[in-house]
Amino acid sequence: MGLLIVGSIALDYIETPFDKIENALGGSTTYIALASSYFTGPVQIVGVVGDDLDNDHIKMLEDHNIDIDGLQIIEGGKTFRYGCKYHYDLNVRDTLYTELNVFESFNPVIPEKSRKSRFALLGNIHPDLQSNVLDQLDNPHFIVCDTMNYWIEGWLESLLKVLKRVNVLIINDSEARLLSQEPNLIKAAAKIQAMGPQYIIIKKGEHGALLFGEDTVFSAPAYPLEDIFDPTGAGDAFAGGFTGYLHKTADLSFENLKRAVVYGSTMASFCVQKFSTKGLEKLSTLQIHDRFLEFKELSRFDDDVSI
Amino acid sequence: MGLLIVGSIALDYIETPFDKIENALGGSTTYIALASSYFTGPVQIVGVVGDDLDNDHIKMLEDHNIDIDGLQIIEGGKTFRYGCKYHYDLNVRDTLYTELNVFESFNPVIPEKSRKSRFALLGNIHPDLQSNVLDQLDNPHFIVCDTMNYWIEGWLESLLKVLKRVNVLIINDSEARLLSQEPNLIKAAAKIQAMGPQYIIIKKGEHGALLFGEDTVFSAPAYPLEDIFDPTGAGDAFAGGFTGYLHKTADLSFENLKRAVVYGSTMASFCVQKFSTKGLEKLSTLQIHDRFLEFKELSRFDDDVSI
Repeated sequence: MGLLIVGSIALDYIETPFDKIENALGGSTTYIALASSYFTGPVQIVGVVGDDLDNDHIKMLEDHNIDIDGLQIIEGGKTFRYGCKYHYDLNVRDTLYTELNVFESFNPVIPEKSRKSRFALLGNIHPDLQSNVLDQLDNPHFIVCDTMNYWIEGWLESLLKVLKRVNVLIINDSEARLLSQEPNLIKAAAKIQAMGPQYIIIKKGEHGALLFGEDTVFSAPAYPLEDIFDPTGAGDAFAGGFTGYLHKTADLSFENLKRAVVYGSTMASFCVQKFSTKGLEKLSTLQIHDRFLEFKELSRFDDDVSI
Repeated sequence: MGLLIVGSIALDYIETPFDKIENALGGSTTYIALASSYFTGPVQIVGVVGDDLDNDHIKMLEDHNIDIDGLQIIEGGKTFRYGCKYHYDLNVRDTLYTELNVFESFNPVIPEKSRKSRFALLGNIHPDLQSNVLDQLDNPHFIVCDTMNYWIEGWLESLLKVLKRVNVLIINDSEARLLSQEPNLIKAAAKIQAMGPQYIIIKKGEHGALLFGEDTVFSAPAYPLEDIFDPTGAGDAFAGGFTGYLHKTADLSFENLKRAVVYGSTMASFCVQKFSTKGLEKLSTLQIHDRFLEFKELSRFDDDVSI
């Protein structure tokens, strides 16, 4: 079965000090699906849009072998629209507008053919919808989940329910501290593991990522980028690369999860080097593997036996 | 020739939420010398104290094969005294008092026998004193330098002079941004390299450290510590481990500098696990090497050829 991806689909307005773009296909599903499409396919997306998507938007997804049978298109409806403007240092983002539109009443319906999916990635949506998706799966085997501070702060009970049912939670450092009420990230990860997920990935932006398994930690470096053009979607690209690689290899050992984290970091690094989804649209397998090897070289050191 | 270390020597009062200690031997030289003593010796320290050191203080140094011939003891003088109190999360420290005492007029005099030292570590002291030390060396070959925001802000011209004469600058992330006036650490390192040092090490605390060489970057992970008892001296322990290992191996290749960074991180991790200098007082070579291997396991991942 294919990899199932459920999340938001949006039309974005993005402005940075370097460029701006209107009506760009965005949302967590778009970035996740593009990133994972380089590893496995067809990935199956479930989401909702209005009838205002361009043919180019659909074509971009189809060009990446993304199965859109689970895309609900609401006649006369408008797609979720999001506008933001980044400050000079790109660490601060002002939301210009959030128009939920058809996303406000999103009720994910997993197509019959996808209910047997054993791998699913629950993008950053309401935790009740994430649980709803899991309810529709016949025999889920490996579930990766994203979330954000908004759900931690406002819908903790719902989030705790879904956390009991997922294998991996991907979260950033400030969200991990918020969810665990613990400033030390090592302790925070242990507390979150006690909530359900076997594995926790804590993303630390320019400082890389940590993967926590059972009494084991893996520290992945960040790619040393001099210039970031647009941070939008980096976390989703990470999740897509991570889950896509795992789905392709079907190896759930900790050693392979480590490689998956590096492939996730690889896809995130490509994502932020160009505007909007452009960094994820035209990659080759060779480029991706070369960057994986760069990550390896970046953190590699050899033991010596002299001491 | 031995490794030469020049810096401050202090009597510390340290208070954390977990413990407190009075009259503890501290200062950059003490932590550096202890950390480096596990790799090479006798390390030669140059510094100034009053006649108020206890025999226990001197004995602790001598027990670690630290050569104190370069220690100026000022009769009737008082040793530099420093008191601080850490807040609950240990990231914030209030200085309770700073009594420079004999350190105020410190004029480092390198003993005749140490002037041929080819390896030196200039601890965090006034950059003019750092230059003064270099002036006294016959034929310096490899110089490692530490500094801090105080000198960057107030004595930039002096600092820039010494930077032209050193091989490695060890600095933390906020100091690197301050010195380079550049928020991106990759660009910041390049700017600082243009000031003189061939290698820049940027320490990032819980996020590890970056080593920058000529067009090469190495990313070292941080040791995943659940509990830090006292951060005092961690940076000096890093510098001591790094330089001690290089002095011992006399291999200045980038590959060996990477290992040295990990040995530096190793010594810093031991330092913060106990109070004051206690974490550096009773280590074994085996313990140190085991932790080095833990660092290796923490960041190791293997390539796969399936993609």
